[in-house]
Amino acid sequence: MWRATVLTLFPEMFPGPLGVSLAGRALAGGLWGLEARDIRDSATDRHRSVDDTPAGGGPGMVLRADVLAAAIDAATPTPDQPRLVMSPRGRPLTQARVADLARGPGPLIVCGRFEGIDQRVIDARALEEVSIGDYVLSGGEIAAMALIDACVRLLPGVMGKLDSSTEESFSAGLLEYPQYTRPQLFEGRAIPEILTSGDHGKVAAWRQAEAEALTQALRPDLWAATTAKKAPAKGESRKTPKNTTDG
Amino acid sequence: MWRATVLTLFPEMFPGPLGVSLAGRALAGGLWGLEARDIRDSATDRHRSVDDTPAGGGPGMVLRADVLAAAIDAATPTPDQPRLVMSPRGRPLTQARVADLARGPGPLIVCGRFEGIDQRVIDARALEEVSIGDYVLSGGEIAAMALIDACVRLLPGVMGKLDSSTEESFSAGLLEYPQYTRPQLFEGRAIPEILTSGDHGKVAAWRQAEAEALTQALRPDLWAATTAKKAPAKGESRKTPKNTTDG
Repeated sequence: MWRATVLTLFPEMFPGPLGVSLAGRALAGGLWGLEARDIRDSATDRHRSVDDTPAGGGPGMVLRADVLAAAIDAATPTPDQPRLVMSPRGRPLTQARVADLARGPGPLIVCGRFEGIDQRVIDARALEEVSIGDYVLSGGEIAAMALIDACVRLLPGVMGKLDSSTEESFSAGLLEYPQYTRPQLFEGRAIPEILTSGDHGKVAAWRQAEAEALTQALRPDLWAATTAKKAPAKGESRKTPKNTTDG
Repeated sequence: MWRATVLTLFPEMFPGPLGVSLAGRALAGGLWGLEARDIRDSATDRHRSVDDTPAGGGPGMVLRADVLAAAIDAATPTPDQPRLVMSPRGRPLTQARVADLARGPGPLIVCGRFEGIDQRVIDARALEEVSIGDYVLSGGEIAAMALIDACVRLLPGVMGKLDSSTEESFSAGLLEYPQYTRPQLFEGRAIPEILTSGDHGKVAAWRQAEAEALTQALRPDLWAATTAKKAPAKGESRKTPKNTTDG
């Protein structure tokens, strides 16, 4: 069973929104597992302190390497389990990475708080920094929830017959085409005629064209990446090149 | 007072993680406000239905324009209040946009579920689509929480004396330098000597160099944007140019 282990100073935040709706029903139904572990349980002094002032000065507090390392070790991650730390410094999360994580055993996720985490525990425990976007949260917990929710909906059985994960944003490197439903007329605005024509081929072509136009207009970066992927340079294959140099 | 109004099919998800720790203390202390409104309260039929099948076919269900429009109108957004809808199709959220939203009155945020939202309500109510990243969630709720949390920590009084928002990732277009704290030695790894030297100038220079090196190595896109902003083309000012053409 896919299982997420979260290390946090606020285990009471979990499951939170992950205990409701799609993810919540799947959690209750045993389709995935969630364990929220309190980092503070690995504190060793009588004040149960987990943080200290930054070396070199500056505002805020830094999560201690020794306490966090003990918390990670106590969670006994398996060798094949991704060990992530949510951080704005991390590699930006993508749908491809989400799908990859959903295929695995489920990650161990460290949630930072305060000014940051002592770099030495990131190095010593080979934590992979993952960012959900270019903004700063008060902690890693909501970021971890986003990552877990994105993974859980891809797990076998979670979306069930409503499985719509193949026709959505990013599945083909495109944003999703616009959607419409009844009523036919809303405040003088009609559903585009082609969608009610019954011509499945035309509907599919219209949606593809809309998705491409939207992606070009709103996300030129995504469009460039998608078209580059679909049109590899001619005469080049991805086989091992004959000559390689390091670096 | 800064106030977020959330339209959702799962109001019980709120405040959730926003009711704990930094955001939770500020919420309890009256430094910001949160209202979660149930979209289903604006359904008009006896089944209280909010969604229907996509026009043109396809999997999933689409949130109805008439029901959602009624829910938005019932929330009586003020003219200056940003009206957002969390969507992977939206403009990617940035820390600059977060700061902008934190300076305003607080947004109305629509959380989608199902396959999507009828495009006509997005158009008719001038909803701005905002994305927290290039991945797909089961709904907009956790995305809304991320946006709200990012805004709340910037509100006056929320971080208090611990205000560290000026020295963090993205504040100068750079990722944050590595942090260290006691103990001095952790599993044979020492805190970099310069940080314990007491020389504030050297510490600042080291941190700046580390932040720049990290950003160049991990986020060349961010580095390019930052250096472009700092070095505008010579001889060019940002005044109104003499000749302009549309498009």
